Amino acid sequence: MKIKTADYLVKRLKELGIKDVFGLPGDYNFNVLDAIIETPDINWINCTNELNAGYAADGYARINGYGAVVTTYGVGELSAINAIAGSFAENVPVIKIAGVPKTSFINSNAIIHHNFSKPDYYAFEKTYSNVVETTAYLDEDNAKEEIDRLIETMIKTKKPVYLAIPMDVCHHLIDHKIPEVKTKSDNNALNEATEKISCMINSAKNPLIITDYLIKRCRLQNEVRAFINKFNINITSMIMGKGIVNEDDEHYIGINHGPLADNDFIDFYKNVDLTIGFGTLFSDLNTLGFAALPDDRFKIDIQADYVIADGDRFENVLIEDVLAKLLNSNTIIPKSQDSAAKPFKGYKDIEASGNNIKTDEIFPLLQNFLKANDTVVIETGIIGYASSKMKLGSDSNYLSQPLWGSIGWATPALFGASMADKSKRPILFTGEGSHQLTIQEMANLFKHDIKPVILLLNNNGYTIERYLSNNFDDVFNDITSWDYKKALELFSLDKKEFAYHSVYTSKELKTALNSAENEQKEKLVYIEIFTDKADIPTLMKKSLDFVKNRNV
Amino acid sequence: MKIKTADYLVKRLKELGIKDVFGLPGDYNFNVLDAIIETPDINWINCTNELNAGYAADGYARINGYGAVVTTYGVGELSAINAIAGSFAENVPVIKIAGVPKTSFINSNAIIHHNFSKPDYYAFEKTYSNVVETTAYLDEDNAKEEIDRLIETMIKTKKPVYLAIPMDVCHHLIDHKIPEVKTKSDNNALNEATEKISCMINSAKNPLIITDYLIKRCRLQNEVRAFINKFNINITSMIMGKGIVNEDDEHYIGINHGPLADNDFIDFYKNVDLTIGFGTLFSDLNTLGFAALPDDRFKIDIQADYVIADGDRFENVLIEDVLAKLLNSNTIIPKSQDSAAKPFKGYKDIEASGNNIKTDEIFPLLQNFLKANDTVVIETGIIGYASSKMKLGSDSNYLSQPLWGSIGWATPALFGASMADKSKRPILFTGEGSHQLTIQEMANLFKHDIKPVILLLNNNGYTIERYLSNNFDDVFNDITSWDYKKALELFSLDKKEFAYHSVYTSKELKTALNSAENEQKEKLVYIEIFTDKADIPTLMKKSLDFVKNRNV
Repeated sequence: MKIKTADYLVKRLKELGIKDVFGLPGDYNFNVLDAIIETPDINWINCTNELNAGYAADGYARINGYGAVVTTYGVGELSAINAIAGSFAENVPVIKIAGVPKTSFINSNAIIHHNFSKPDYYAFEKTYSNVVETTAYLDEDNAKEEIDRLIETMIKTKKPVYLAIPMDVCHHLIDHKIPEVKTKSDNNALNEATEKISCMINSAKNPLIITDYLIKRCRLQNEVRAFINKFNINITSMIMGKGIVNEDDEHYIGINHGPLADNDFIDFYKNVDLTIGFGTLFSDLNTLGFAALPDDRFKIDIQADYVIADGDRFENVLIEDVLAKLLNSNTIIPKSQDSAAKPFKGYKDIEASGNNIKTDEIFPLLQNFLKANDTVVIETGIIGYASSKMKLGSDSNYLSQPLWGSIGWATPALFGASMADKSKRPILFTGEGSHQLTIQEMANLFKHDIKPVILLLNNNGYTIERYLSNNFDDVFNDITSWDYKKALELFSLDKKEFAYHSVYTSKELKTALNSAENEQKEKLVYIEIFTDKADIPTLMKKSLDFVKNRNV
Repeated sequence: MKIKTADYLVKRLKELGIKDVFGLPGDYNFNVLDAIIETPDINWINCTNELNAGYAADGYARINGYGAVVTTYGVGELSAINAIAGSFAENVPVIKIAGVPKTSFINSNAIIHHNFSKPDYYAFEKTYSNVVETTAYLDEDNAKEEIDRLIETMIKTKKPVYLAIPMDVCHHLIDHKIPEVKTKSDNNALNEATEKISCMINSAKNPLIITDYLIKRCRLQNEVRAFINKFNINITSMIMGKGIVNEDDEHYIGINHGPLADNDFIDFYKNVDLTIGFGTLFSDLNTLGFAALPDDRFKIDIQADYVIADGDRFENVLIEDVLAKLLNSNTIIPKSQDSAAKPFKGYKDIEASGNNIKTDEIFPLLQNFLKANDTVVIETGIIGYASSKMKLGSDSNYLSQPLWGSIGWATPALFGASMADKSKRPILFTGEGSHQLTIQEMANLFKHDIKPVILLLNNNGYTIERYLSNNFDDVFNDITSWDYKKALELFSLDKKEFAYHSVYTSKELKTALNSAENEQKEKLVYIEIFTDKADIPTLMKKSLDFVKNRNV
């Protein structure tokens, strides 16, 4: 059977489990959008601009597994490229689709809008080729083959891909059959690697797993949770891996903040004799400024498609196969040790007061507000490290972007993540400096009846940059001061309800969060927390000092 | 004498006449920003996001001659790339500067934020290389030479260039001396070309100049104005060239809308026996859908660096040299003809009424509001063609983006253009669909005391796309409905004053514009005009019909 190319593309998106496609219309992508809106069980979601659409698709893919964003040619696609590059950096599989002019325009090199005065119809594919795993530019001859190649690459690498589809090619008929995507490890290497890992685990007295972001991207959270329980092995997580483990699991010892962690963690970590990486990345902000780097006990490193064990490298072994084989192993002897010496508790309760609130007071209070089945989205800035220390409720999602670190990401990402799983309670913690960049996506929260609790840290500018720049008071770290309650009025379409709380003391924050508990069931809740522009969380301060002292 | 590389860069920006640099801070660009804020007579302008900063720099450059935007590495620069690509498409010289990580990180390929998990420190330069004239990535050895090469390229081509400057290289000492930039035509070719052109003009009875965007970019407006008066030659303009001629000049016959123009224009154009292009571009939207294409009377085509005259091509002749030589020519005999048969009047006055306003009624009323020394910025969408027909006051700027056509451009571009020339009265005409994408830049209008009159056409979605898509009512052309008065409250920092008018009839628009006349001296004026989602200006309708009929 033959179907239209655009319909085949949409069929493949559906097969990936994509139910919502984000983007903006434009005169070159109408045929793609029509295919989407005419197909059952897949929705088109208009965003307020293309960068936001890209961020929303990224947030969606982090929860759903895959995401898709459609823009028009040139203008629209270039506006989205930062978001797609972020997905590439953090291994979030998003397909970026651009509707491009019809083939006759391409062939005649016509001078038309969204192109240059000396037209280059391939300029934007070339642009994207630097920030995605692969690109494809469809024509009638290659349409089927290239769509299949692209989707296969995305499935195998869990990285973004780029597709340009000319208007007329959308209607070209191609075979409807979806080919099987075979992702298979080298069996010998897999056997050797898992045998070696099993032996090493058995030889260790006190092994510790360090889990991280690739487990999320490969959707192996359940396998990791099963693994630590079956073999009674303790686990920590890098910041990007937060949420993989249920944080009330007795094997969880908290996030790996390395030497900047609390004493409980440091004491426990001292006695570990083997650390095992599950999809780790030791980038600067994932390690609090290269503080939490692995040491020579890090002898097993399981990556997406290779393993290093005691210096031996095994190629073509996929992380899902490695974990599955280990999980089913009869060789590994469950540890008899007590589980984590001290079960992870997160922040200690604090006494709320009527004094000006400090950022350090926010996290314990927010932690008390968290419960099972939250989706917590954390913006880049001063709050990332300290947020990672909060104890999450069980089965919660935790999204942050410590590698790409694009300010503004969190607001649309929360929107996308909420669309992906409406059963979870959405919580956004952002700073006003970041929020300003992408604030208009708030309109979609109202439109789609998403009722997050939004905490806005208003500290009068880019506080982290005040610390990093040469002079604390450099004027370029000041930003315009907005009346954010008016933003709610601006974006609350048809006068939808919302709750707004302004918070100057920890007592007020406690009260606001108490109210939010019930308010959130009915409406969006917005809590604006005013802190001093010099106030940063202790963990952030520790990291800044660590970096400073190392440089000396 | 030696100075710091960052200081030399800023010195070169100043030399280009750049007084305001737009952008956002980030931890890799502080050394560049410090050089800016520590240098007298050049200001740092914080924008609300990088795309807006790019648009603002584009608007600034269109008035000032050159523009500059500074962002951080990776995230910030990619967010701005659509704006820079637009500057490239429309020949607007903007230098895009990215502060990038220090050389030791680059050399060790460190995994740090704003890069990929497998770092590629040159990925973003490669990305930009597709949308700018040239790129440079500084190190200590090449810093001076590469800055000079980059600026020279921008001066010569009037196109954007990209510069990456590592943090440490900012402090590297280089020679302070600015080299001379020599842009010179081939003298023989120049003599031959201008002689030929002079002869052809003398042979013609009724020649007509078609002026366009390159005259703006090369800042030759005065030369063109002098030329038509010295030789008594009539002139029309393509849409992108609007504003080059003073529209009350007796030689001006209105914008070239080709067969879609009014009868006066068509009648006049019939009797022309030679058309002369002054920096023209016959792209789709500059010609109302390839309606206003030149015919075989178009025998002289003066482009940026070449001339075609009666089939002969002359290379390496710069448009500024060609115009200068022609202007000083004693060979050309001034025409004795009456100037334009009918002096250009623009729209006829209309009777304002209490009925629901039609888009066609807006332009005559707005035209009456225009006066000398306006800066008029027109957004992409249904209003471009009809706006180009309005008669401007003398010495006014007219900015639009018909080639790149990126919706959302106009709001930040108005901000940039207003910063470039505060003596002009800023007028923005945009649609709500476009305004939403970049609305936060409104905060900077308030911050910098810019008091534009903003006309917002609220027609409940993307009206132009309703006409272009397969079904008028396709849901993807609906957008969220905002309460724009609240946007003013959100962004009017410290409760700065503004005036807001909602307009449903042409009578109300007339009244609002009357009030705006005085209000604008004290505050920002915002006029929201509500029209039917199917209502488009006649000239837009004509163009849609033209395109449709041609395709049949």
